[in-house]
Amino acid sequence: MKKLIIIILLFAAVSFTGLGQRKIINLPDLPGYITLKCDFHLHTVFSDGNVWPTVRVGEAFRDGLDAIAITDHLEYNPKKDFIPIDHNAAWKIAESTARDYNLILVHGAEITRDMPPGHFNALFIKDASLIAVDSVWDAFAAAIKQGAFLQWNHPGWKSQQPDGIPRMYEMHHRLIKNGWLHGIEFFNHTEYYPLVMTFCKQYNLAVIANSDNHGVISEKYKDQTNRPMTLVFAKSRTHDALKEAMFAGRTLAYFKDMIGGKEEYAKPFFYQCISVGKPYYENEKSIYFEITNKSDVPFYLVNGVAEAPASITLPANSVTRVVVSKKVTAPLAYDVKNVITGEDEVLKVVVSFK
Amino acid sequence: MKKLIIIILLFAAVSFTGLGQRKIINLPDLPGYITLKCDFHLHTVFSDGNVWPTVRVGEAFRDGLDAIAITDHLEYNPKKDFIPIDHNAAWKIAESTARDYNLILVHGAEITRDMPPGHFNALFIKDASLIAVDSVWDAFAAAIKQGAFLQWNHPGWKSQQPDGIPRMYEMHHRLIKNGWLHGIEFFNHTEYYPLVMTFCKQYNLAVIANSDNHGVISEKYKDQTNRPMTLVFAKSRTHDALKEAMFAGRTLAYFKDMIGGKEEYAKPFFYQCISVGKPYYENEKSIYFEITNKSDVPFYLVNGVAEAPASITLPANSVTRVVVSKKVTAPLAYDVKNVITGEDEVLKVVVSFK
Amino acid sequence: MKKLIIIILLFAAVSFTGLGQRKIINLPDLPGYITLKCDFHLHTVFSDGNVWPTVRVGEAFRDGLDAIAITDHLEYNPKKDFIPIDHNAAWKIAESTARDYNLILVHGAEITRDMPPGHFNALFIKDASLIAVDSVWDAFAAAIKQGAFLQWNHPGWKSQQPDGIPRMYEMHHRLIKNGWLHGIEFFNHTEYYPLVMTFCKQYNLAVIANSDNHGVISEKYKDQTNRPMTLVFAKSRTHDALKEAMFAGRTLAYFKDMIGGKEEYAKPFFYQCISVGKPYYENEKSIYFEITNKSDVPFYLVNGVAEAPASITLPANSVTRVVVSKKVTAPLAYDVKNVITGEDEVLKVVVSFK
Amino acid sequence: MKKLIIIILLFAAVSFTGLGQRKIINLPDLPGYITLKCDFHLHTVFSDGNVWPTVRVGEAFRDGLDAIAITDHLEYNPKKDFIPIDHNAAWKIAESTARDYNLILVHGAEITRDMPPGHFNALFIKDASLIAVDSVWDAFAAAIKQGAFLQWNHPGWKSQQPDGIPRMYEMHHRLIKNGWLHGIEFFNHTEYYPLVMTFCKQYNLAVIANSDNHGVISEKYKDQTNRPMTLVFAKSRTHDALKEAMFAGRTLAYFKDMIGGKEEYAKPFFYQCISVGKPYYENEKSIYFEITNKSDVPFYLVNGVAEAPASITLPANSVTRVVVSKKVTAPLAYDVKNVITGEDEVLKVVVSFK
Repeated sequence: MKKLIIIILLFAAVSFTGLGQRKIINLPDLPGYITLKCDFHLHTVFSDGNVWPTVRVGEAFRDGLDAIAITDHLEYNPKKDFIPIDHNAAWKIAESTARDYNLILVHGAEITRDMPPGHFNALFIKDASLIAVDSVWDAFAAAIKQGAFLQWNHPGWKSQQPDGIPRMYEMHHRLIKNGWLHGIEFFNHTEYYPLVMTFCKQYNLAVIANSDNHGVISEKYKDQTNRPMTLVFAKSRTHDALKEAMFAGRTLAYFKDMIGGKEEYAKPFFYQCISVGKPYYENEKSIYFEITNKSDVPFYLVNGVAEAPASITLPANSVTRVVVSKKVTAPLAYDVKNVITGEDEVLKVVVSFK
Repeated sequence: MKKLIIIILLFAAVSFTGLGQRKIINLPDLPGYITLKCDFHLHTVFSDGNVWPTVRVGEAFRDGLDAIAITDHLEYNPKKDFIPIDHNAAWKIAESTARDYNLILVHGAEITRDMPPGHFNALFIKDASLIAVDSVWDAFAAAIKQGAFLQWNHPGWKSQQPDGIPRMYEMHHRLIKNGWLHGIEFFNHTEYYPLVMTFCKQYNLAVIANSDNHGVISEKYKDQTNRPMTLVFAKSRTHDALKEAMFAGRTLAYFKDMIGGKEEYAKPFFYQCISVGKPYYENEKSIYFEITNKSDVPFYLVNGVAEAPASITLPANSVTRVVVSKKVTAPLAYDVKNVITGEDEVLKVVVSFK
Repeated sequence: MKKLIIIILLFAAVSFTGLGQRKIINLPDLPGYITLKCDFHLHTVFSDGNVWPTVRVGEAFRDGLDAIAITDHLEYNPKKDFIPIDHNAAWKIAESTARDYNLILVHGAEITRDMPPGHFNALFIKDASLIAVDSVWDAFAAAIKQGAFLQWNHPGWKSQQPDGIPRMYEMHHRLIKNGWLHGIEFFNHTEYYPLVMTFCKQYNLAVIANSDNHGVISEKYKDQTNRPMTLVFAKSRTHDALKEAMFAGRTLAYFKDMIGGKEEYAKPFFYQCISVGKPYYENEKSIYFEITNKSDVPFYLVNGVAEAPASITLPANSVTRVVVSKKVTAPLAYDVKNVITGEDEVLKVVVSFK
Repeated sequence: MKKLIIIILLFAAVSFTGLGQRKIINLPDLPGYITLKCDFHLHTVFSDGNVWPTVRVGEAFRDGLDAIAITDHLEYNPKKDFIPIDHNAAWKIAESTARDYNLILVHGAEITRDMPPGHFNALFIKDASLIAVDSVWDAFAAAIKQGAFLQWNHPGWKSQQPDGIPRMYEMHHRLIKNGWLHGIEFFNHTEYYPLVMTFCKQYNLAVIANSDNHGVISEKYKDQTNRPMTLVFAKSRTHDALKEAMFAGRTLAYFKDMIGGKEEYAKPFFYQCISVGKPYYENEKSIYFEITNKSDVPFYLVNGVAEAPASITLPANSVTRVVVSKKVTAPLAYDVKNVITGEDEVLKVVVSFK
């Protein structure tokens, strides 16, 4: 082995085979909490999806998720001529695979009605078949009896709200009054509903992002870096800690380059993602420093103060060089355009470089 | 802003414009040292390269490097009919750009002769024109007088050694005896020379990786994740700390999915890259655990002990699930196939999961 | 609309939604024949696959195929606790989708036995349930009675032939004697079996390439340009013309950058892919000309005659510049390394540029 | 060679080395004309560019262009402290490389003044140094004396027209009156100027698209499929035929997914790109047929007639399935949103499928 070696021949491409590797999603933990990446809305051949339940585990494992729920429709079963209805089948099939791959599998089902009240996922349930009952209110009650987290799905879905605007009807208010509603989807697949942020803040509900995938994740999101996912800030990486965090509403919604959620989680999340270096050079006019964004989320800072850069883009996993005029006296305050904290609000931050 | 919004329309692709962002190369620091990523062999139009010196700064900044040296040939000037010879021109042109972009620019030049002794880079020099003298030994002496780090370039280059085997001639031994030779290229562009590892260990020289680029980095390495680079373990991110570390030989050579260097640096580097989790599941037959590789370097573990997995691939930036039979009694020892520590040696490691 | 417009804002990325578009696979027709791209070996949830039958149609449509066969195992039904056995279900479900998407759906099934005789696909059948009988010979007879094309699958599969070498047993010879065997897989997923070429030439059988996919095509072949496919040279793009061509053995096997098959099809296929331009420049020493490869298949020409280029690579969809010494007197003969025409043979071609 | 072979090991990735291959840009010829792909605005180190002239030839060859012009500024020479001014140097250096690579090199220079009149490229010249004179009108005259094609560059460039609106000043009208102005840039790098279409139609000028590249093409356009280029419809692929076609104004401007130009060229170009198949299926309600787009340009058909699909996207190199209601009686007329034929006009086409 004394000769020179053309490197290209030594190590041929090693492909990721099967379910072998979990991608690392670069998102920071929050102080005191572990950030779990979750998708709580997925379908299989046991309702109107097109894949076997174990496919959902494999996809989530490779994508770097910590938890998923398979939530087949209880009332919509277009494949019943070929597959007998069994509302717990997907759970039974996927459970051991999830265990082997260290993925938290949340038992779930989708209660599927016209609007109002629309579609709801019952999460953390024990027996989906007991929820498949005629009256939707009875279905809610059966889910709650099992300790379910109730999530209102895609409230502005055009098939149910042609103008795309989510509306609270009497039954939604009744659910809230009973303490039965726990979260709402802010992102569903490639849509999002700004008004959900108002509802969640008003009634103290969890802000959720899910894929609602029926086909193949890698085909649906091949042009995106990631599917929609809920970031849950849990005390540990366990099923029960996840459940506790969800009921406590400690979540952010994440898709593509957008984060949505309450300021109390969005603000520390932002500051955990970035770090601002000390100036490395200055001259008569300007100060030079760097901002490191260690996360997979880019941040778009806009509306800078007078004499400061009007906008700063902090791409994912990169270091951004910033040159600031010495005339700037005010703190470097910015709006973070892609961190949505309200129906018409984005996160406000300050960049401190000294 | 109450309606649903199709996300794809909100934030159009934000491209990295110009020199704005430095990519983060995910490689760990070593205890007590910062890992600087460096390319000490680059050409411009001031010898036989095809780009202006500032292009080298921009490329290195975007690629996430910490330091470069522009090392135009002193004796080979094919563009002299159009560009008058000025051995310090590239340095003068690139210096302020490097400063503005927080990149360490090492002043260098390439002493270019037939074999023996071949090509040498003089790094950390002060005036390249004083090194452009007739006698190669005088050139070495002039470089050393300026405090240069002397690096032997591509010792197995086929144009100078048709069989690709590096050889030490009388002049190389004389350089070593004088303490004038400080490092040798193990990787040059897409080649590497196993025998260099023997020379570097025997004479206590730095193991180096450089691109030796004449054209455009992004074109040459478009199918690779990175160009060849020298990892230098320095006490701080400064020109002088870099120089100290180079003379102390605290380096590893890195290209594609290969690391080459002395075991004293390769071993802690490997253990800083990976972390082994506690078992998350076990049954009668097997124990399940995960190995996290937080770095951009994949690791190929081979030659496992009896009953253990024969090989384990740890892709870059991912978590690998490992299932080990309970029959394994010995420590989980492996050879790391792509971490080269000698002419015929690779790094040996142990995976401890309990 | 008088102002300048930054183009990036005008037309946002238009994604291919759902089943809308068929990719064009750039492969030439042969004189008198249309080249149909086919995959005759696919599984669904109705045996041990993980997707619904319509997924196979959607994948094939997007991939640019002309025909597929869904060939679920008759005798291996691991999902039977959840899905009742119905050997024609996949066909019934996929048929109307295939019609809507202008894809030829071949009715098929896989006869699944230990070696000998191994696994066989019965293609162009009418009722798979009649083939699900105890005796394998009776199964063959039932398939033939329906007019089936019988294809021997992965004859060197390591689970059935640990050394990877295909072997003909008594039953294979009996099938051939009866005229019941019509083709053999040369490529199956990422494997190929050189000896199959000998069998196919000796007994005049069709050379076949299939994916044998159980999961998701886009995940299995994400690092490849295409799945394995059989190129069938048919008189028209219809089910019956496809069937006629298959029984006539007018096929080539195609995967990645490899073509396998009989010289009578491989040779005209190669010459339809490339065109050689007239010299565009010459000087005292050399002649310059270009070779255009209009197809998706690269060609690697090796073993050039004396004074000619030793090898010429013709990448897919590109024009290659060739400089030939005027000393060359012999015709520019080459072996095409990646066009396999026999167990130890590759295609021989001549490049004529004048 | 009897054993099965894992294909991935046989043919390792073959990379395109150096200048070896010209990509095929899939764009049709027009009846009677060959479509030449050209970039007439490029800079090198001989003005304010950052690369050596031969780099421009290599880039254009790999990108699949037929012709380029290197057009360094005559009056702006920021590198003159290091590189003596020689206005013909780039031409002299690049000429033999262009010849060897079968690329048409157009001799050019950029006349560089404040607005009015702004920047102009003189193309097809013989000696750039004779055009480097004090008076801009004298410069124009010197160029015209050499037979130059005069091209007005980026007329809405914000540095010269802060509102981005191109304006004709007295000198422009004088140029036109003299017959000295022959073309205007519609696309310059990532900008385009709708008003240019009005000027070109009014004064019968060529519509031009150029990159105006100063750095590295592959870095500037890494997120695009192609750089901006002028499609010239020439009688043959020669320097003189190109010149004839340019003066005759037979051009289209092409960048990303946009085509701009006069209807007389845009309309036949569109119909050469697509072909409409006969219906392959129909039922009581609908007719199914396919549209093939063999080109690299996607087409976005919008504003469909009543009952027809409102819009049809024809992605590049793909076949699009169209389902049309039988209620449609009018011809299938569409606007092609991305084929710009006037300041406020796009191409109108009819899809005939019977």
